Amino acid sequence: MSADFGLIGLAVMGQNLILNAADHGFTVCAYNRTQSKVDHFLANEAKGKSIIGATSIEDFISKLKRPRKVMLLVKAGAPVDALINQIVPLLEKGDIIIDGGNSHFPDSNRRYEELKKKGILFVGSGVSGGEEGARYGPSLMPGGSEEAWPHIKNIFQSISAKSDGEPCCEWVGPAGAGHYVKMVHNGIEYGDMQLICEAYDIMKRLGGFTDKEISDVFAKWNNGVLDSFLVEITRDILKFDDVDGKPLVEKIMDTAGQKGTGKWTAINALDLGMPVTLIGEAVFARCLSALKNERIRASKVLPGPEVPKDAVKDREQFVDDLEQALYASKIISYAQGFMLIREAAATYGWKLNNPAIALMWRGGCIIRSVFLGQITKAYREEPDLENLLFNKFFADAVTKAQSGWRKSIALATTYGIPTPAFSTALSFYDGYRSERLPANLLQAQRDYFGAHTFRVLPECASDNLPVDKDIHINWTGHGGNVSSSTYQA
Amino acid sequence: MSADFGLIGLAVMGQNLILNAADHGFTVCAYNRTQSKVDHFLANEAKGKSIIGATSIEDFISKLKRPRKVMLLVKAGAPVDALINQIVPLLEKGDIIIDGGNSHFPDSNRRYEELKKKGILFVGSGVSGGEEGARYGPSLMPGGSEEAWPHIKNIFQSISAKSDGEPCCEWVGPAGAGHYVKMVHNGIEYGDMQLICEAYDIMKRLGGFTDKEISDVFAKWNNGVLDSFLVEITRDILKFDDVDGKPLVEKIMDTAGQKGTGKWTAINALDLGMPVTLIGEAVFARCLSALKNERIRASKVLPGPEVPKDAVKDREQFVDDLEQALYASKIISYAQGFMLIREAAATYGWKLNNPAIALMWRGGCIIRSVFLGQITKAYREEPDLENLLFNKFFADAVTKAQSGWRKSIALATTYGIPTPAFSTALSFYDGYRSERLPANLLQAQRDYFGAHTFRVLPECASDNLPVDKDIHINWTGHGGNVSSSTYQA
Repeated sequence: MSADFGLIGLAVMGQNLILNAADHGFTVCAYNRTQSKVDHFLANEAKGKSIIGATSIEDFISKLKRPRKVMLLVKAGAPVDALINQIVPLLEKGDIIIDGGNSHFPDSNRRYEELKKKGILFVGSGVSGGEEGARYGPSLMPGGSEEAWPHIKNIFQSISAKSDGEPCCEWVGPAGAGHYVKMVHNGIEYGDMQLICEAYDIMKRLGGFTDKEISDVFAKWNNGVLDSFLVEITRDILKFDDVDGKPLVEKIMDTAGQKGTGKWTAINALDLGMPVTLIGEAVFARCLSALKNERIRASKVLPGPEVPKDAVKDREQFVDDLEQALYASKIISYAQGFMLIREAAATYGWKLNNPAIALMWRGGCIIRSVFLGQITKAYREEPDLENLLFNKFFADAVTKAQSGWRKSIALATTYGIPTPAFSTALSFYDGYRSERLPANLLQAQRDYFGAHTFRVLPECASDNLPVDKDIHINWTGHGGNVSSSTYQA
Repeated sequence: MSADFGLIGLAVMGQNLILNAADHGFTVCAYNRTQSKVDHFLANEAKGKSIIGATSIEDFISKLKRPRKVMLLVKAGAPVDALINQIVPLLEKGDIIIDGGNSHFPDSNRRYEELKKKGILFVGSGVSGGEEGARYGPSLMPGGSEEAWPHIKNIFQSISAKSDGEPCCEWVGPAGAGHYVKMVHNGIEYGDMQLICEAYDIMKRLGGFTDKEISDVFAKWNNGVLDSFLVEITRDILKFDDVDGKPLVEKIMDTAGQKGTGKWTAINALDLGMPVTLIGEAVFARCLSALKNERIRASKVLPGPEVPKDAVKDREQFVDDLEQALYASKIISYAQGFMLIREAAATYGWKLNNPAIALMWRGGCIIRSVFLGQITKAYREEPDLENLLFNKFFADAVTKAQSGWRKSIALATTYGIPTPAFSTALSFYDGYRSERLPANLLQAQRDYFGAHTFRVLPECASDNLPVDKDIHINWTGHGGNVSSSTYQA
């Protein structure tokens, strides 16, 4: 009996992907370093399905149809390299290794190049959707050796989520592009989660809403423009009671980890010089949450404004304003994410397909939403769209949302509720739509203290301020006239 | 004739450091790859001073007293390694190489280790103060081989700036610690500059102030708690007219570069998991400024609120509120910077001296200010101060500043002036003083969709929610009970 593909790594994601593939008629060979995991899986979840096990790597490889398709779902980093080194000697030219873990895209770039030299086709594929997604239809973002695509397309598109009948899985691009797009997806996921948390916090601490009332608000929002998986589960989480009948969520420690893909996205944004501020703030918000003991001490000595009982005068208006704040901030976050993808494509020389990326995120994954249907539509209408905010639908949406967005932030600012993501989104919007930002003063400062030179605005050019030239002014009348061409102070 | 030390690299900073040392009675040997630069310098600026030149690297080394002290002021990166490789064969054990450029601290860590093996003492020293500082007294932040310190201490502390009679130069710590502290200094400089730009932008676009009026405001602020080099030069820049009598600053292109140390600081903050949000936003603000053409297009299609003529009702109050906003935001930025330094010391195993760091920044460098005198005082009073915000002076200052801070941001938010740095500072403050943040909901979401587990608040622990354990709840009633121990979706 030979398998259509093999999967190594039987943690929850791996198990569920295998079960998903078996449901779609594929025969899958399962392997795990710890043999008991394989045995347990075969005797329980996998029982009666088209799933076979292997007792060793050699046994595993021998059970796969050619070209062999080996999918790895193991911890990112060294374990992936170790497994690849173990498998490669057993493979033939044209065989395919698929890394479905959360690998960092530079690692996938490297593995793609190394395996290419050996004639092995490498695919780095983002997999999103958590346990449920893996089991019933994840979002899959494969990139790497395009020759591999015809061999895996049927499997991938069969097991992936569907959105309006279309599979949430398309070929992303070369080398590590699949993992790159998954990384940005995760960064956006960080942002979406932070935005929802801020809305919850404002309703709770400023509006004095109970968790059940907040759940009802999210239920209502889930029927509108914010219709999405994360809003839906937030609705459910907020009405999930512990055994004592009290909301479980209020008993959960308010500290979140951040050492993953969100951080990578923020670092990549800094490296590429793209102002992906919302993801940056979302990552930093997790960092701050982790300083729990320090915050407890700070809460005792650092005062803030009292929230008066009537801070919220019209609850319905307050909720509507907040919905607009969340919606507009989310539009900014996705606009920033696609700006980053655009810059990555230019910097790394990848041809990336924006409508396909939006479609892949439309269903199956954690950030799935009706909203991503609109983004798909926007990029299908205008494949060369410079920025999501230039699309009429989103420009109109932001325009309409502005008043509620500004009111929500002003209120939270006044009464001391932190809104790092809401606020950075608005500052980005107001900066982005500013023909002139105050960086002219900054350039003057840099030239003043470090002779770093500046450029003149074309409309202000003159004989002493020539256009497109690096200009240095001796602001003080003393000091040298040497401009700082090689030394950055 | 032999020199007390030698300096390679005759761009503006190098030239000025040599002139500064000569003023203090040291004999300096100057060298540059391009010989004409040496000749020109000797025949002009250096004429009549205790400055000698060299015609080759060998000539240069032969003219130095033992142990030789070679200072490099060249472009960071490969040029530093190339020079070191060229010099090392000409040196003896115990000789000292000082890199005074803006090297990235991991490079200084590496060079420190490599040169240690060869018996050469490496010092990586931050130098700040721009042209003027280098000429008349910079802030110097040396770190590396501590054995080198007694040999260079006199030179360094003589040429450095003085603050209340104390030199703005102390030994920072091992390996790349000197360049690390300089990096954080530069990050803070990015933040200070962005804050000033936001204040200027708000006065200009919201208050309708002329540049002369804004200059007067900065002049006033420079006599108060904001007394600092950057506020002082901003005052001067805003009243500096072009030949046509119009303010020069308004003709300068509003695009700033960001590929340097500010970016490194933000990336390091992400790596160490410290919420250094203000520097992050300052770097991103430069990125956004660089997208000038895109902003011009956006300004034509993305609307914002009109600023009414009476947006500012009481100009004096408006300016006072803004001063408090700038002051409080600055306190947050420095608190964040010292949080980062604290974490770096712990992570890299460095013993760093906080009061000395504050003193080094107190004078000579770009961020020099009266304010840093208060920070020095705070750390001298409480060497183990957990956070600057726990010091009474700063806690009181922030408390007093809060009302104006919140009002300024609310006003800018309402009328569409971007305040990324002001806003992130306030959100940090409100988050930092929150015993509970909404990250409990975030942890619930992560456990819901990815079985990532959560912890319970100690005060809410029970039999089914044990304290200090990773808890997974089957939120949906279906799906597996396998918790995600190895796979992060």
